[in-house]
Amino acid sequence: MRILITGAAGMIGRKLAASLAADGLGERPVTALTLADIVAPAPPPGFAGAVAPVVADLAAPGAAAGLIGARPDLIFHLAAIVSGEAEADFDKGYRINLAGTEALFAAIRAEGRRAPYRPRLVFASSIAVFGAPFPERIGDEFLCAPLTSYGTQKAIGELLLADHSRRGFLDGIGLRLPTICIRPGAPNKAASGFFSNILREPLAGREAVLPVSEEVRHWHASPRAAVGFLRHAATLDLARLGARRSLSLPGLSATVGEQIVALRAVAGERAVALIRREPDPAIAAIVAGWPRDFAPERALALGFCAETSFEEIIRIHIEDELGGRLAF
Amino acid sequence: MRILITGAAGMIGRKLAASLAADGLGERPVTALTLADIVAPAPPPGFAGAVAPVVADLAAPGAAAGLIGARPDLIFHLAAIVSGEAEADFDKGYRINLAGTEALFAAIRAEGRRAPYRPRLVFASSIAVFGAPFPERIGDEFLCAPLTSYGTQKAIGELLLADHSRRGFLDGIGLRLPTICIRPGAPNKAASGFFSNILREPLAGREAVLPVSEEVRHWHASPRAAVGFLRHAATLDLARLGARRSLSLPGLSATVGEQIVALRAVAGERAVALIRREPDPAIAAIVAGWPRDFAPERALALGFCAETSFEEIIRIHIEDELGGRLAF
Repeated sequence: MRILITGAAGMIGRKLAASLAADGLGERPVTALTLADIVAPAPPPGFAGAVAPVVADLAAPGAAAGLIGARPDLIFHLAAIVSGEAEADFDKGYRINLAGTEALFAAIRAEGRRAPYRPRLVFASSIAVFGAPFPERIGDEFLCAPLTSYGTQKAIGELLLADHSRRGFLDGIGLRLPTICIRPGAPNKAASGFFSNILREPLAGREAVLPVSEEVRHWHASPRAAVGFLRHAATLDLARLGARRSLSLPGLSATVGEQIVALRAVAGERAVALIRREPDPAIAAIVAGWPRDFAPERALALGFCAETSFEEIIRIHIEDELGGRLAF
Repeated sequence: MRILITGAAGMIGRKLAASLAADGLGERPVTALTLADIVAPAPPPGFAGAVAPVVADLAAPGAAAGLIGARPDLIFHLAAIVSGEAEADFDKGYRINLAGTEALFAAIRAEGRRAPYRPRLVFASSIAVFGAPFPERIGDEFLCAPLTSYGTQKAIGELLLADHSRRGFLDGIGLRLPTICIRPGAPNKAASGFFSNILREPLAGREAVLPVSEEVRHWHASPRAAVGFLRHAATLDLARLGARRSLSLPGLSATVGEQIVALRAVAGERAVALIRREPDPAIAAIVAGWPRDFAPERALALGFCAETSFEEIIRIHIEDELGGRLAF
């Protein structure tokens, strides 16, 4: 099986590539892995098959055709610029997040005109397709009414994915990823960054800033769960999806207060003491428009699963990022 | 006030132009009317202002900029190829219905970079943005899950409209028009054609074919109501819409049997006798996937209104298309 990952240099892309290299995928051996991104992705260690890191901007003429010419059987389309950047730069957001996706789909269709070709395509969508006001728990039939350009671009990607799947050009599934927590790496300026910062930094013995109240509730899954979603979507029988090809995924609905209780249980009061409260009304206002909880019944019935407690999410971070050890 | 109508040579476009020419629009006088379509639109009779018929394909380079250079205050964006054609020709559908809309929005944004510009834009969407399975009455928070390429293109247009409005590039409203009945003109091969054919043809003393059962229920509004929707949307205070810029409109939910009862009441048994039953399983299957009824609470609260009986719809056709007289 030949696999293409777009956005392979990103956090999830790297973890997915490592997982495919280490564990394969289902019954068919992974023979080739093409890792595309705008910066060169590092090849995963220990993979016996062929790895091709490709520096490519999908929206650039010919770039998508170049990737699809190798006729990958399975495509993970993760490439995107993030919410904050898509909001700050309208043109760049539409170019990367929409025109890039359109170019990829067009290249697949063009390849299919040369000789029959209908790859599995797993599209990383986002809960940003939803915008307030929404019910306390968002169900599977709730409308996509995004309040950001990023969410708009992802919602359009979902519509294109469904239409291209319906027409038989590809076999697509869209996954509305929860907010990924605990995100490894340095704290960033994303409005959602604090959800990870207040756990990751104290676990490493460093201070973190909490800009909102402990009552704020949000929807989370670990990086390991995200890789699990993508892998499960890659091998699922998509006939079970019907025409609606995008899914809200399982996750954990938790308040900031519940995150802190879990941190205390796993790492003690010393860790919790490293959280500094610094209310930021601007961030509080943004976060107030974000989904708090979902009833992802379709995805649960299809076998997708995520963590069920924040202690579990924290332990996964300690295992996967800290070598199983706390800083203190 | 300068007004641009795209798709001005179509049935609704012609009626809208005639209405604006005859009655103006609200308080501000209509000084210029630009009528764009891929075939030359006929200028409406009796208009005192400047009329510019323009032959233009919005998706062609420079075409949208040419239309927007005149800085219309109000744009009715009706241009589209119909559902059947968009399904038969995938590329053409995306080019006209999606790329054309994108080009129009991009031209508006470019004009706004030269000097402040934020026109009112009324976008003709469609109930084709909804796909089965749906509830018996579709509410305002039900998801857009189209089952045609046309519906996909309209749903994407709605998302782009909302994002461009949110960013302040235009002041947009999308109207999900019900099926227009009674459609004037010759019977066409659209799967929905029979809803109009079984009334229009007998009213003119001609035979019509009914391919489905009398139990089939669908969602209708007259051409006069459609023009009314567009006019109302053009002058409404859109701050009342919030971020969700597209609306399911009022209409009349009626069965084919109820259409026939109304025909009998208005034109007698002789008219009804001209309906020939010729079941067509292919058409029945298509129609089974169409919405039957709506609960358009937002649009009703905003003052949109449609007919409340099929007798009224038939009388409007007799007044507007038949000079007030039946054929017999």
